[in-house]
Amino acid sequence: MTTEERLKQYEEWLFRRSAYQMALSIIGIDKLTVAPPAGNAYRDARTAYLSGELFSIDTDPAILEVLKELKDDPAVDADTAKGIQLYYEEAQKRLCIPKAEYIAFEELSNRSYDAWLEAKQKKDYSIFEPYLKQVIEAQKKLYGYRDSELPLYERMLDDYEPGMRIADYDAFFAAVKERLLPLIAKIRDAEKPEDDFLYQEYSVEEQKKFTDELLQYLRFDPSWGYQNETEHPFTSWTCENDCRTTTKYLPDNPVSAIFSTVHEVGHATYEHQCDPRYDGMILSDGISSGMHESQSRLCENYLGRTDAFWEYNFPRLQKHFPEQLGSVTLAQWMRAVNAAGPSLVRTEADELTYPVHILIRYEIEKGLFSGEISTEGLDKVWNAKYREYLGIEAEDPSEGILQDVHWSGGSFGYFPTYALGSAFAAQFTDAMRRDLDVDKALAEGRYDLCMDWLKEHIHRYGCRYNAKEVMLKATGKPFDVNIYLDYLEDKYSRLYGLK
Amino acid sequence: MTTEERLKQYEEWLFRRSAYQMALSIIGIDKLTVAPPAGNAYRDARTAYLSGELFSIDTDPAILEVLKELKDDPAVDADTAKGIQLYYEEAQKRLCIPKAEYIAFEELSNRSYDAWLEAKQKKDYSIFEPYLKQVIEAQKKLYGYRDSELPLYERMLDDYEPGMRIADYDAFFAAVKERLLPLIAKIRDAEKPEDDFLYQEYSVEEQKKFTDELLQYLRFDPSWGYQNETEHPFTSWTCENDCRTTTKYLPDNPVSAIFSTVHEVGHATYEHQCDPRYDGMILSDGISSGMHESQSRLCENYLGRTDAFWEYNFPRLQKHFPEQLGSVTLAQWMRAVNAAGPSLVRTEADELTYPVHILIRYEIEKGLFSGEISTEGLDKVWNAKYREYLGIEAEDPSEGILQDVHWSGGSFGYFPTYALGSAFAAQFTDAMRRDLDVDKALAEGRYDLCMDWLKEHIHRYGCRYNAKEVMLKATGKPFDVNIYLDYLEDKYSRLYGLK
Repeated sequence: MTTEERLKQYEEWLFRRSAYQMALSIIGIDKLTVAPPAGNAYRDARTAYLSGELFSIDTDPAILEVLKELKDDPAVDADTAKGIQLYYEEAQKRLCIPKAEYIAFEELSNRSYDAWLEAKQKKDYSIFEPYLKQVIEAQKKLYGYRDSELPLYERMLDDYEPGMRIADYDAFFAAVKERLLPLIAKIRDAEKPEDDFLYQEYSVEEQKKFTDELLQYLRFDPSWGYQNETEHPFTSWTCENDCRTTTKYLPDNPVSAIFSTVHEVGHATYEHQCDPRYDGMILSDGISSGMHESQSRLCENYLGRTDAFWEYNFPRLQKHFPEQLGSVTLAQWMRAVNAAGPSLVRTEADELTYPVHILIRYEIEKGLFSGEISTEGLDKVWNAKYREYLGIEAEDPSEGILQDVHWSGGSFGYFPTYALGSAFAAQFTDAMRRDLDVDKALAEGRYDLCMDWLKEHIHRYGCRYNAKEVMLKATGKPFDVNIYLDYLEDKYSRLYGLK
Repeated sequence: MTTEERLKQYEEWLFRRSAYQMALSIIGIDKLTVAPPAGNAYRDARTAYLSGELFSIDTDPAILEVLKELKDDPAVDADTAKGIQLYYEEAQKRLCIPKAEYIAFEELSNRSYDAWLEAKQKKDYSIFEPYLKQVIEAQKKLYGYRDSELPLYERMLDDYEPGMRIADYDAFFAAVKERLLPLIAKIRDAEKPEDDFLYQEYSVEEQKKFTDELLQYLRFDPSWGYQNETEHPFTSWTCENDCRTTTKYLPDNPVSAIFSTVHEVGHATYEHQCDPRYDGMILSDGISSGMHESQSRLCENYLGRTDAFWEYNFPRLQKHFPEQLGSVTLAQWMRAVNAAGPSLVRTEADELTYPVHILIRYEIEKGLFSGEISTEGLDKVWNAKYREYLGIEAEDPSEGILQDVHWSGGSFGYFPTYALGSAFAAQFTDAMRRDLDVDKALAEGRYDLCMDWLKEHIHRYGCRYNAKEVMLKATGKPFDVNIYLDYLEDKYSRLYGLK
């Protein structure tokens, strides 16, 4: 076969797999947003079958032979070669797994999601526990097939953030503990900012109207993006021009929907702003979970929680809630939305305590895969860790162990990238502020200038370069956790008058 | 191969095809409800590919051999044999079509839908005309492959309503013309019922709240059903416990959303109430388009437009719109929602003029496929026919030739079943009223008793029996168009004091 013939086969294969990916993505969004629950069993079984079809396409020996030849073929351009290399590596991870077990796992994870949702609604961990146990056992088995010298949990970590090892995360979280826990303790004793005005009736209808305005400010265009509602907000996409987000409205607090919207639109914008030449290809995906999360956190916290952002948006929010916010000043609002302190629910946590929520999950995941922790009584382990690090614990498991969807689908090793993403974001923002008057842009309604900077330095590359390369390109230096910890110390010491 | 081995292969094949059907159904709903439009091209190409995959499964020679053996195998139970027979017949229709042409048509029809939507929004037939032309040419070619002695248009008619020929429809519409056109003319000259109160501001938010109550009355349960919004309401389903409907809210008229809701839930209930043993199999589908439409029309008109239905629901509606309806009596409401008279838009038409809207489409379709009518200037042909039969014509093509979605996807021969369905519904209702005090049930909020009757006599059979068989089983006599025409004459003569 000539290079040209191989490339033709590669492109046909790319198209074929992108069709299944699109179907699975849309079926997934549908399930999480509107699909009638009594149809779950029927749909889940068939969804698993279609996942199996994609699995077969991805592990087809004929195409793997083509990929193998092409990845070292000097006649192939660098972009294409990089994509092929990544597909080849992904295929190696799947090849070792028997297809029937792969399908069985897909089906299990769908059922497990349903059980998690029911358990959360009924506030009963015992409904979910048997599924969690099965999911962990299945993941141990599936990851066990992989030819790798890494311990099981490290294989999972590597899938979400290539190159990050347990030792790296241990060091990262040790720094978090060392520098943030004392600060959190001080803040716990400091005077609380007044934030009662956040906790009253905020009509969901009115919140939706403000969200529509906010989406415009964020440049989330309905021609390529759509926002829906779910229990657990997420972002999903099929291509450059189809990036969906979801949010969740609380009738007694507007902050949750606002910041989850800014967050998820950050993910969506990353996907939308990738070089369109990569559409439908692996290169169009974000580099890693940590890099993806860095973009959403950057938008949510480093832009969305600044004075400048709210200089523009707060008067608009006040118009929707004159009774609740008419007499609140911008300064009061800023102190309230930046209030820090121990809390139970990760997605509602402030920037400062957020990495501690992740630390807890990281320690539990490590324990689950080393065998030191089991799923029985895990709700109690969870509570004990919250007590230890944050001094509080959940009475209701829907605010404790059942709060997050991730484990129901077998996503272990994913959480740590959330904290890492926050840290990446600090360094990216630092660089952005050197090039651009970010505050001026935000205050004048020119959020797009920030998005342009991200496109230029990060988004357009997709995963053409790895996290280290992009960090260096965009910020001029390697990743440095201290930029993140300095930022948090500085921000919260100032906010709480501890300096 | 033994019968058992063949049945196993058949069941595996059934499952496989149902997975693709489910995916295509969900992707289709997504496209018509929430998918971002700039992603259309990307998604449409891949959706067409997946349709091709289903086409390959359905025309796989190995499975056709199995179906051929099984359909005449006396060891197979009657239900299964009937399903196999139907699959075999469907496969024969597809086998003759080259797969590449089938995929090209799927893609064309997706692009054509996008063009239709744009044309309707821009009120410009010329945007849609080239696509309509291509779709018709493609359908002529695809139906031309079929080994059949029927004329092209009759093949299409037969696909939607097996056994109905042009001569049958000609006779049907001749009766419609003969008995209804004079009545319509008389009503045009009669005094109009007062209905100004229908045409004022009705908040969409408030309409949605009433719809939620109405859905409960209709026993449309969120565990198995979901309602969304679209430009053109429709119903879609993947299985017994996943039946979706859509509606459209007009801010200046509540009637449209109400009756489209009752109508679409009629379709959904038909699917939901089929014998669950048939789930995922061809037997679970409705018998024919006319039979499906008979169930939605029965709900919309023969139940939904009765005094008894509104005796229960009108006070509830009034509570949502005290300003608009507080001083309107039930009798005034009933006269207003049953007002008849020439109108431009089929989906908003009254029961009496409805079949005339269909007659116009039937004559145009016949002309398009006999070659007497072409797509160029079709907007003018359309208007001329409205002028001839109803004495009015559309100035805006979005209320004229662009009003319906059907032709954009190549659905020709479908419209006539809408009128036929109304006629079937008259005969079913006649039989239901012999068994059940329908008015008492409706007035007391026991809509479910009517649904139970439909389940028992029609729904549970799926397409286990054909339309003629079910008509005979359910009503005790063969289809008689005069029951329908008598009903309309009686109802409208009374309403307009013409008796």
